[in-house]
Amino acid sequence: MTISMYQASVPVLVRMLGNLSAILKKAVAYAEAKKIEPRVLLDGRLAPDMLSFTRQIQIATDSAKGCGARLAAVDVPKFEDNEASFEELQARVAKTIAFLNSLRPEQIDGSEDREVTIPTRDQPMQFKGLPYLLNFALPNFYFHVTTAYAILRHNGLDIGKMDYLGAR
Amino acid sequence: MTISMYQASVPVLVRMLGNLSAILKKAVAYAEAKKIEPRVLLDGRLAPDMLSFTRQIQIATDSAKGCGARLAAVDVPKFEDNEASFEELQARVAKTIAFLNSLRPEQIDGSEDREVTIPTRDQPMQFKGLPYLLNFALPNFYFHVTTAYAILRHNGLDIGKMDYLGAR
Repeated sequence: MTISMYQASVPVLVRMLGNLSAILKKAVAYAEAKKIEPRVLLDGRLAPDMLSFTRQIQIATDSAKGCGARLAAVDVPKFEDNEASFEELQARVAKTIAFLNSLRPEQIDGSEDREVTIPTRDQPMQFKGLPYLLNFALPNFYFHVTTAYAILRHNGLDIGKMDYLGAR
Repeated sequence: MTISMYQASVPVLVRMLGNLSAILKKAVAYAEAKKIEPRVLLDGRLAPDMLSFTRQIQIATDSAKGCGARLAAVDVPKFEDNEASFEELQARVAKTIAFLNSLRPEQIDGSEDREVTIPTRDQPMQFKGLPYLLNFALPNFYFHVTTAYAILRHNGLDIGKMDYLGAR
């Protein structure tokens, strides 16, 4: 038995996005209970030149759908990046999960050496599938999920690491 | 070609710990340049009931050495958890990297179904090797590395995501 590229990507991402969805629900309940304008949390950030909560969720989902699509060698679904409410962010997370679940193991397995190109503002980044997954896509995904979590914690939401890690 | 348990764990953790070490160096230089008492950064936290920067580094390294040791079925090295300076945190990161680099691929490969037990304050958590790595050890490790990064960013350190992701 060895790990497959599919096992190390899609179910891992789907699981964490489910945890993120549960955290979003808690944030909505918290804002309602404390009469916090949702915008305060959606625009929350940890430093003036860091990205907002909304952008963290957008990039976390971009990272997840980009990972699945690139390893499967299919087009990355485009989202509008116009979410302005928790409800719309939830819908984005749900769309991302649905896309990932549409990918079949046989599309992704064997992608260890597949050429992956990430467009950036400067020159595109080139990877092989395996280092792309392990050294770029997953750490980047976790970075944005954790930062989103941290913004909510910083703003008083009562969540703990088990919300992030999810039930077993 | 498939991913091996070793590939998906030790080199990934070592790489990220190297990035963390470089971030620690930048934090020291920043504290010196701005005449910030190092304790302010070491004790920094994002919410009053979140763990400090020092604890984030301790737990990130615990998570890394625990992951390598448990997958290899060797004892987890014990550290004293008494670091009180950036220098001591650097030494802890270096010790963790040295331990991980001492593990051979053949000790970890094939650990997908190995029983892994994590002691907790309540009852121990039981895993198989593969879900332990993918759903617990790696997300937990990234959580603490990212939170450490975020505490420094929140306190004005000029770092970006490429410091976290590392050079390619």
